[in-house]
Amino acid sequence: VRQRVVIVGAGFAGIDCARRLVNEAVEVTLVDRNNFHTFSPLLYQVAAAGLADSDVAHPVRGLFHDAANVRFRQATVSGVDWRARTVLVSDGPDLPFDHLVVAAGATTSFFGVPGADAHSLPLGSLADAVRIRNHVLRLFEAADADPSRVAAGDLTVVVIGGGPTGVEMAGALTELFSMVLAKDFRRLDVARARVVLVELAGGVLPPFSDRARRHAAEQLVARGVELRLGEAVEEVGPEGVRLRSGERIAAATVVWAAGVRAAGLADVLDLPQGRAGRIEVGPDLRVPGRPDVWVAGDMAGTGLPQVAPVAKQQGAHVGRQIGRLVRGRAVQPFRYRDRGSMATVGRRAAVADLPLRIRLTGAVAWVAWLFLHLLYLAGLRNRATVLVNWTWSYLTWDRGNRLITELPAPAPKRGRTPG
Amino acid sequence: VRQRVVIVGAGFAGIDCARRLVNEAVEVTLVDRNNFHTFSPLLYQVAAAGLADSDVAHPVRGLFHDAANVRFRQATVSGVDWRARTVLVSDGPDLPFDHLVVAAGATTSFFGVPGADAHSLPLGSLADAVRIRNHVLRLFEAADADPSRVAAGDLTVVVIGGGPTGVEMAGALTELFSMVLAKDFRRLDVARARVVLVELAGGVLPPFSDRARRHAAEQLVARGVELRLGEAVEEVGPEGVRLRSGERIAAATVVWAAGVRAAGLADVLDLPQGRAGRIEVGPDLRVPGRPDVWVAGDMAGTGLPQVAPVAKQQGAHVGRQIGRLVRGRAVQPFRYRDRGSMATVGRRAAVADLPLRIRLTGAVAWVAWLFLHLLYLAGLRNRATVLVNWTWSYLTWDRGNRLITELPAPAPKRGRTPG
Repeated sequence: VRQRVVIVGAGFAGIDCARRLVNEAVEVTLVDRNNFHTFSPLLYQVAAAGLADSDVAHPVRGLFHDAANVRFRQATVSGVDWRARTVLVSDGPDLPFDHLVVAAGATTSFFGVPGADAHSLPLGSLADAVRIRNHVLRLFEAADADPSRVAAGDLTVVVIGGGPTGVEMAGALTELFSMVLAKDFRRLDVARARVVLVELAGGVLPPFSDRARRHAAEQLVARGVELRLGEAVEEVGPEGVRLRSGERIAAATVVWAAGVRAAGLADVLDLPQGRAGRIEVGPDLRVPGRPDVWVAGDMAGTGLPQVAPVAKQQGAHVGRQIGRLVRGRAVQPFRYRDRGSMATVGRRAAVADLPLRIRLTGAVAWVAWLFLHLLYLAGLRNRATVLVNWTWSYLTWDRGNRLITELPAPAPKRGRTPG
Repeated sequence: VRQRVVIVGAGFAGIDCARRLVNEAVEVTLVDRNNFHTFSPLLYQVAAAGLADSDVAHPVRGLFHDAANVRFRQATVSGVDWRARTVLVSDGPDLPFDHLVVAAGATTSFFGVPGADAHSLPLGSLADAVRIRNHVLRLFEAADADPSRVAAGDLTVVVIGGGPTGVEMAGALTELFSMVLAKDFRRLDVARARVVLVELAGGVLPPFSDRARRHAAEQLVARGVELRLGEAVEEVGPEGVRLRSGERIAAATVVWAAGVRAAGLADVLDLPQGRAGRIEVGPDLRVPGRPDVWVAGDMAGTGLPQVAPVAKQQGAHVGRQIGRLVRGRAVQPFRYRDRGSMATVGRRAAVADLPLRIRLTGAVAWVAWLFLHLLYLAGLRNRATVLVNWTWSYLTWDRGNRLITELPAPAPKRGRTPG
């Protein structure tokens, strides 16, 4: 009988783990609460109306059409029965396993900041991104009908967190405002729409090189983003944020990009957790004392950054190691190959810290960023539609995806019924 | 002072009306509850996962960037104050007018069939289309986890109505099942997924030529659609439909494509209504006795079919006539130029009844259909992404947009809180 591998999570780690197991003598079940894989590095572009949701999502089943030993289950995992070696799911039959790969990713961490949970918008999922887009566009529509709302901060966005997600979100929003919405809302003084980026450290992109950090900060400011560096958020409320310095910023939109922790599943597994809820693992990414339980990606307590390249490499590593075990070989330790970091501020402005101390900034880094993201995007169709959207935006300074897809409540029915 | 024109509805009629007024000495306000124009002839492809929602929707504001005298308001119109000559909106300030163009379109009519309102899914809006897609895909996912649900009709879709919408929906769904979902769900007997098309008349596409009707019926059957012709729906329930013949079809999905009536707004305007709630109009599309009130598109009681070409021509006509009035000219009557009808059954199969008794069927009609729909789609970006999706589907027999975008409820939180 073939060994059963259950992979929880169809993110970068889960997908790359399953891919490595396609030709191994195992039966793989990949579980995710969504039926699609999300290319999370581009979520901020969905939030800023540059891409459609379908551009950054790929049906999981479509990735494994030719893999006879990989099946997919859309389900929400509620826990694990360690005695029965079974993954418990809230909908449908539970999933017995011989090897368990926990790769359920991360969720937003609000660090206990009062009001942050209730009044700020995270950017962790496709639904989060669409929600931010709808929210911001609806505020512009409302302000167009009633311009007095601008003074109340309805067009102000505060982005909390100056890491890559926060920097990219702030840059994309200020471009959306100045390039696109200024043309859409000619009667509105869109120049009064503010984007404020708040970062606890003394500069943006803390782990990047000095050159990258300087370039990113300069470009953000040049594009109209207001920086609040060395500054903390004390409270988030329905009217905006209050900073440690005492400054209050009236804002109807607060995007929380300040940090993540291991997804909620990590808390119910009865496995030792480290910083930010991440599950403690050995050098081979197995849980110490549990040779059949592997952790990959944002959930793995390795101390590595919670970014896509780490998740992909860890997922692939776990897949390879399970394959080695099945073939009677010894398990190897995981070694991260750091190929560098990139972040985009906007049109023709990005930063890239590459190996061999190569530091790129500006248009060169931006083109490299575009190219690599297209390359890593799952699926040719997604690459083609993303390329269409990017080309369109670049040539026309337009964003075609600025739809408010949540519908307002229908008008109350009055008067006669149909004759 | 320039005359104020308020256009209610940014569908085909409203958009083409506003376009004709761009160079006239009037101030135009275009109102719609959505911030986008929907290319409704392709909604069934969104429902069948062939296109993304953003492919068939175009931001209204983007259509009028260069039109200084056209402004847009996203709002829900609740009625008209005829004495004050003001359009009442449920959100934001009301809109005074000198000319009112009522072009709010149509809504689904369930003809009083018991249970149809509660248990069937209409296909009138973008949200409707996404809802059908999510619903059908979720049923496949659930059946994959529990195959016993197939026998209960979970994979059966009943499409009610054999007009163009019903025919296109049924054809697209059977292709989705046999081409795409059969590969996605290899462990499921997808051949047992049924698509049943119910039509009251003795054949599909009642107003088309005999040749078109025969071809469409043959192609539907060849692709696996079960036809129930000369058959009426007596009742729709949570388990399926009951037909007049007594046949019961167990089906978890019932798509209602059987008919439309004027949108609810028509019922609250205190204007004389005719069949299906449509507002009575004179030959120039003005409401008799109200020289400043025009009706265009599906709401206009002209007896013409409620299709996009009629709406576009009527909208353009009203725009031109208002322009003539402003320039002191006489109003002309509306004359519909019938350029024919088309419907698609699926891959390389369509029918087209054109002027001069030209009848196309099969691949020729299909290519003509593709070309014309690309041509009439608003926006170059939309055309490009639709072309990418169509090319992709044609070459790979795949559909990239099969995402379930409604998220399941998150797993209940248990255990410890973040450390």
